[in-house]
Amino acid sequence: MYKKSLLPIAIALASQATITVADQQIEVQSVYSTRTFYGESAENAASEISKLTKGELSLNVYDPGELVPPMETLNSVSSGAVPAGWSSLGTFSDTIPMANAYGLLPFSPSAEIFFSWTFFGEGLDLIQNELDQYNVKVIPCAYVPQEAGGWFNKKIESVDDFNGLSIRIVGAGSRVYEKLGATPQLLPSNEVYLSLERGRIDAVEFSVPQVDNAMGLSEIADYYYFPGWHSGPTWLAYYINQSVWDDLSEQQQTAVNTACMANIQKDINTLVPMQDDVLAEIESGDTEVLRFPDEVLTELHNVWLEVVEEEKQRNPGFATAYESLMDHASKYERWNELQAMPDILNK
Amino acid sequence: MYKKSLLPIAIALASQATITVADQQIEVQSVYSTRTFYGESAENAASEISKLTKGELSLNVYDPGELVPPMETLNSVSSGAVPAGWSSLGTFSDTIPMANAYGLLPFSPSAEIFFSWTFFGEGLDLIQNELDQYNVKVIPCAYVPQEAGGWFNKKIESVDDFNGLSIRIVGAGSRVYEKLGATPQLLPSNEVYLSLERGRIDAVEFSVPQVDNAMGLSEIADYYYFPGWHSGPTWLAYYINQSVWDDLSEQQQTAVNTACMANIQKDINTLVPMQDDVLAEIESGDTEVLRFPDEVLTELHNVWLEVVEEEKQRNPGFATAYESLMDHASKYERWNELQAMPDILNK
Repeated sequence: MYKKSLLPIAIALASQATITVADQQIEVQSVYSTRTFYGESAENAASEISKLTKGELSLNVYDPGELVPPMETLNSVSSGAVPAGWSSLGTFSDTIPMANAYGLLPFSPSAEIFFSWTFFGEGLDLIQNELDQYNVKVIPCAYVPQEAGGWFNKKIESVDDFNGLSIRIVGAGSRVYEKLGATPQLLPSNEVYLSLERGRIDAVEFSVPQVDNAMGLSEIADYYYFPGWHSGPTWLAYYINQSVWDDLSEQQQTAVNTACMANIQKDINTLVPMQDDVLAEIESGDTEVLRFPDEVLTELHNVWLEVVEEEKQRNPGFATAYESLMDHASKYERWNELQAMPDILNK
Repeated sequence: MYKKSLLPIAIALASQATITVADQQIEVQSVYSTRTFYGESAENAASEISKLTKGELSLNVYDPGELVPPMETLNSVSSGAVPAGWSSLGTFSDTIPMANAYGLLPFSPSAEIFFSWTFFGEGLDLIQNELDQYNVKVIPCAYVPQEAGGWFNKKIESVDDFNGLSIRIVGAGSRVYEKLGATPQLLPSNEVYLSLERGRIDAVEFSVPQVDNAMGLSEIADYYYFPGWHSGPTWLAYYINQSVWDDLSEQQQTAVNTACMANIQKDINTLVPMQDDVLAEIESGDTEVLRFPDEVLTELHNVWLEVVEEEKQRNPGFATAYESLMDHASKYERWNELQAMPDILNK
């Protein structure tokens, strides 16, 4: 599936000449639909890479299942059956347990800190070390903002209200709800709407307002809760078979790395204002937008600290990455404290 | 000074051939020394552009005064005497009064909001419209974090303590101090150290800890105050003579734009953790690091709101840009409020 064909391409250089260059095409199995920004961002970066290499390098993004089923993507890239994949790292936390520290992390540091840890701290090196064993090169390339807390058909006034609740949720946050007596359900996205509508579940954590709303969840849920305590901001990545990556020229590799770094910045520039527009639309409808009470968040946080300790015991890779992230986050504490404005100016 | 020479360059393409390509060199007059990150970031972006274009396009960054004096940079780029410049926009607010909204803006929105306004909101379009009259293309390309509040040899316990104070400060914040009875001084950087040491001034606002500390100010000041209420985060930019820009190929233009967007993200990833290290060093010395009391900040803010109104009356371009930025910032209000963690979890 990895084509390296020699196609004659006319490139008009400032001086002269039509020459023949290697036209490389890399097929990319996205785990997300290109009709949401999760998949669309892969296409944006690919288009930039193509322009930077004057069409010499094309990353062709395929919708979920077009090449291999989503859950087989990492293994297929590892074997070379598919040259590249696109998803959050959390998608393969079953294979690489450390990946749990890279996405859907409850009570996570901010996006600024997470990206700084990734590129300036140890974040990227740690996960690349793990992926080296799979012959896979990882390139962070997009931004996903913190999710919403989710859609509920029951008002949450204390943590007792989670007791007995059936909730669709992905990631480590589900273990927090479990400890509070809720029953987490790992429903695939295409069953979410119907399950909530029929009352088979009481609540759904899915994504950011833009994606949640496109699924029609505001039509059938009474309350939309914030903050998304269960999921910090994260990045999506291309992961590329190492031999495919090594075959690229230095300029092509630079084009991929630079286009991806720029793509992250573009996503950060656009995604929150886009959520705000959708949020205003949701608030104008019948769903009430609410915050979990502060005491509830404080108790969720206490339970999360227990879950973290258990996870660190069970998963040394997670422990390493989590401690490294928290250590990096501490480099922002004094700065943020010194630069903070008084509360009265922050309304 | 703008060279477009045809040099034979051997480029090894995957397929074959040595060909001759146009080697473009653009000389860039930086307003900041390349020994600080303000100038160094221009070199980082230039190096990336060179790699992306396989050396076809070189931006050569010159230290202050090497081609023309700092204050003549914009006019020289406008006339084509120098092909390009590098600085914050604030540098030419005498020529383009709107630029006052783009740097050193007191009580500014966050970096996230400022960059989103620039690229996704109206920020870049508004200033480019102004620069069109000067035949200059502007490309935001680096990040400057919020500055420190400054070095003081007098403790600030109420706004009365500013009365009679002689303080070196640049930008609109100086008008706030003036209204409080202080005497702002517009000293050039090479006179700052001696003036504070000799007691000719009582206080200095200069830059971020990394730059301030390199000037030795911690040796001679009793207090280092935060927050830098007078100066929000901002960007530095290449500004390129429009004809020089138009002469670049599409791929070269993409390389400049993409490398610059990536450079901003890289700066954001690195600069705050770097300040933290320097801050720790300063705190281990004799200078006390303090925050302006909350009541002082609130009163500074009230005076700033008066200054803004005066500036808007006097400068319609500033009014347009400032209102546009504040309008964009309002798109983050509901989101930030919903996603905020309780204070008890933010210590």
